[in-house]
Amino acid sequence: MAFPGLEYMITSCVLFLRELPKTSWAKIVKVAKMARKLAQDDPRKVFHSFKVGLAIVLVSIFYNFRPSFYGFGDNTTWAVITVVVVMEFSVGATLGKGLNRMLATLLAGSLGVATHRVATLCGEKGQIVLISLSIFVAAGTVTFMRFFPEMKARYDYGMLIFILTFSLVSVTGYGENELLEEACERLLTIIFGSILAITICICICPVWIGKDLHNLVSSNIEKLAQFFQGFGDDYFDDSKNNTVVVVDKSFLQGYKSVLNSKTTEENMANLARWEPCHGNFKFGHPWKQYLKIGALTRACAYKIEALNVYTNSEQTTPNELRIKIQESCRNVSSECGKALKESSLSVRNMIMSTGPNPHVANAKNAAESLKFILRTNPWEGADLLQITQAAGVASLLIDVVGSIEKICQAIDELASLAKFKKIETTEPTQLLHRGMVQPIPRDDGSDHVITMAE
Amino acid sequence: MAFPGLEYMITSCVLFLRELPKTSWAKIVKVAKMARKLAQDDPRKVFHSFKVGLAIVLVSIFYNFRPSFYGFGDNTTWAVITVVVVMEFSVGATLGKGLNRMLATLLAGSLGVATHRVATLCGEKGQIVLISLSIFVAAGTVTFMRFFPEMKARYDYGMLIFILTFSLVSVTGYGENELLEEACERLLTIIFGSILAITICICICPVWIGKDLHNLVSSNIEKLAQFFQGFGDDYFDDSKNNTVVVVDKSFLQGYKSVLNSKTTEENMANLARWEPCHGNFKFGHPWKQYLKIGALTRACAYKIEALNVYTNSEQTTPNELRIKIQESCRNVSSECGKALKESSLSVRNMIMSTGPNPHVANAKNAAESLKFILRTNPWEGADLLQITQAAGVASLLIDVVGSIEKICQAIDELASLAKFKKIETTEPTQLLHRGMVQPIPRDDGSDHVITMAE
Repeated sequence: MAFPGLEYMITSCVLFLRELPKTSWAKIVKVAKMARKLAQDDPRKVFHSFKVGLAIVLVSIFYNFRPSFYGFGDNTTWAVITVVVVMEFSVGATLGKGLNRMLATLLAGSLGVATHRVATLCGEKGQIVLISLSIFVAAGTVTFMRFFPEMKARYDYGMLIFILTFSLVSVTGYGENELLEEACERLLTIIFGSILAITICICICPVWIGKDLHNLVSSNIEKLAQFFQGFGDDYFDDSKNNTVVVVDKSFLQGYKSVLNSKTTEENMANLARWEPCHGNFKFGHPWKQYLKIGALTRACAYKIEALNVYTNSEQTTPNELRIKIQESCRNVSSECGKALKESSLSVRNMIMSTGPNPHVANAKNAAESLKFILRTNPWEGADLLQITQAAGVASLLIDVVGSIEKICQAIDELASLAKFKKIETTEPTQLLHRGMVQPIPRDDGSDHVITMAE
Repeated sequence: MAFPGLEYMITSCVLFLRELPKTSWAKIVKVAKMARKLAQDDPRKVFHSFKVGLAIVLVSIFYNFRPSFYGFGDNTTWAVITVVVVMEFSVGATLGKGLNRMLATLLAGSLGVATHRVATLCGEKGQIVLISLSIFVAAGTVTFMRFFPEMKARYDYGMLIFILTFSLVSVTGYGENELLEEACERLLTIIFGSILAITICICICPVWIGKDLHNLVSSNIEKLAQFFQGFGDDYFDDSKNNTVVVVDKSFLQGYKSVLNSKTTEENMANLARWEPCHGNFKFGHPWKQYLKIGALTRACAYKIEALNVYTNSEQTTPNELRIKIQESCRNVSSECGKALKESSLSVRNMIMSTGPNPHVANAKNAAESLKFILRTNPWEGADLLQITQAAGVASLLIDVVGSIEKICQAIDELASLAKFKKIETTEPTQLLHRGMVQPIPRDDGSDHVITMAE
């Protein structure tokens, strides 16, 4: 060959091009799989993408026909900007941003026009100084106000738009009449864009963040319920038969996501307040109560984390010692699970329970029974280090009952505040008293024991 | 009087006006107090407000002199918009937004101009259809991409600006040459605005979010240290002398803020990655390691929450029983506190410790000693229900030592990854062996005890 350099270059290029499809194909497949998973997990995200595309196409068509609309000049671009920026995944967020944008534009626009008018009275140099000063003061003050937690939660976007609009209007070099016209046009296009975004967001497959919060709180309680329903079997069975059986224990780990739910819940509650009534959620729905339930759920999840510390600790209580508290512990745990399950269902279906949760009473009885067993000193003479695990588990289970009761009470409060439907149950849930031992303390401090027949 | 109605109106007005100053004054005072507290807690917020005001005034002055700049037409408004929107509290956030905005504008602008050029070849009707279709596809796809967690963390703002710019450029009705000029002008003003915002943010009292994250992680560890340093006195002393002494125990509650720190830390780490090297933070500082330390700190905080469950439980262990494990428990707790305190100081001052933390070794010894005491069954014959509290506390304290060791190891990793300074200590911290009991298990399972002389 006459050109070995050229040959080398060609070989390299061919090699690179031959490898390129492989590597890029692998990447494309990875991204496609991720996208598919995302779409399968929440198909509303796909609908939202369609909605955003549709909204922008609609506003762009409006833009193309703008000469036939009176009063919208070149400012039609502001309608496009507004639609893109205001359109959010949930109705609450879109409404919050839209209303914030419209109100802030109106306020800042009027103030800006007034400032401009005053400034024109001060001569050319005075005008620049006065306008610069007013922009500095307004932008500085509003920026500082954005740090106020209460303002930030609801009006952060509005305050940003206030600074933006005030600066733009004050700074503009138009004459007075032109300025007023311009400001009005811009306000109208922004109102148009906001209303278009809000309408599409509400009318096509709306995502109500209030409903999401409702479902999140209910599913968090359900995760705790799953833990308690599985905990008894997990703690008392796995060491019994040492055969290695691969069991899916992911339901025991579900509570972990509850530990870090605070920020999400607070954001959702803030956005939910913007939403109008929808479905079973009336105007003035008690969103704050969800935060209260969320906090109690988290407190309970911390206790579960502590239970897990014990079950995973090095010092395990031998099975023959553990078995002595098995029945009461299983009872407490499963009744706590049932109480939470029932409460989570009552939240999910928005049904008010007719009386106090019977499983809470059962759990309390089981806890009393557990306390009684502990008082009889079932592990007399055993190595204290060995029994600390079981004693810790028992003591935490006794303590957990109080948390569960608080959660159930908070849910009852929610039910009455939000006026959940009342449904009469024909079959009352039976109180648990099979083999229960219920101590009734006498005045002298000793215990009088009632043993119920099976 | 001739007009009793008028008299009534006047009286009402006078009353209203007399009350008005009082009520509004009360509100003003409340807001002023809140603002003062906010400013005192973090004066950087006041500086930030000044900076925003200054940046907008500077850009407005630039706007006023725009005729003398070549190439910036009416598009100068985009510089104002950019400054207002890009300027954030921290350097990381401002840089992230500014770079996102510039890159996204460049990309979307080029793509928009190209689309526009292709569309003009398809006739008037074909143009509208093709442009609408491309806007729909681009906006929909990018909106969906915003749901990818990794993309959202770093490029969320950029993707929003991409949709915005692409829609604006494609939709515009300009001729071809005009469009290119317009797009270039807009890009230049946006670059100008971003650079102005970034420059002011970095040059005047910069707020480095990386440093904030560093301090947050270190202060969170310190909060845990304070808890452990105070826990021994709190648990073993308050029932001893029943005199009511009002003691400030807020330091025992400091750990509560650590429980919910996950979201904050993750956001801060995401923003910190945008920051250039500053102070002791070099380029490529291991921000991910802070998240690891944060997760371990939270895991330890959950255990503290469990300890608090015990100390606040109804079933308290009587003092005469509690006293038997007092010394070892106090030792474990205080050594854990010291280990954490030392680690938090090493993070805060960016100093690498020369060897393994001696307090961790002490805490381990104290835990072994506590285990030994538990094995000797100090509460022989006592009511098990009464001793569960103390047993639970002891068992958790033993378990906590492992968490502390993990935290200290993660900090050592950070120190070597981030190349902290090495400082040779002249006085090595003495190992704790005063009155310690160290069991060495023999092969037959029984314990051989070495008692050290005081």
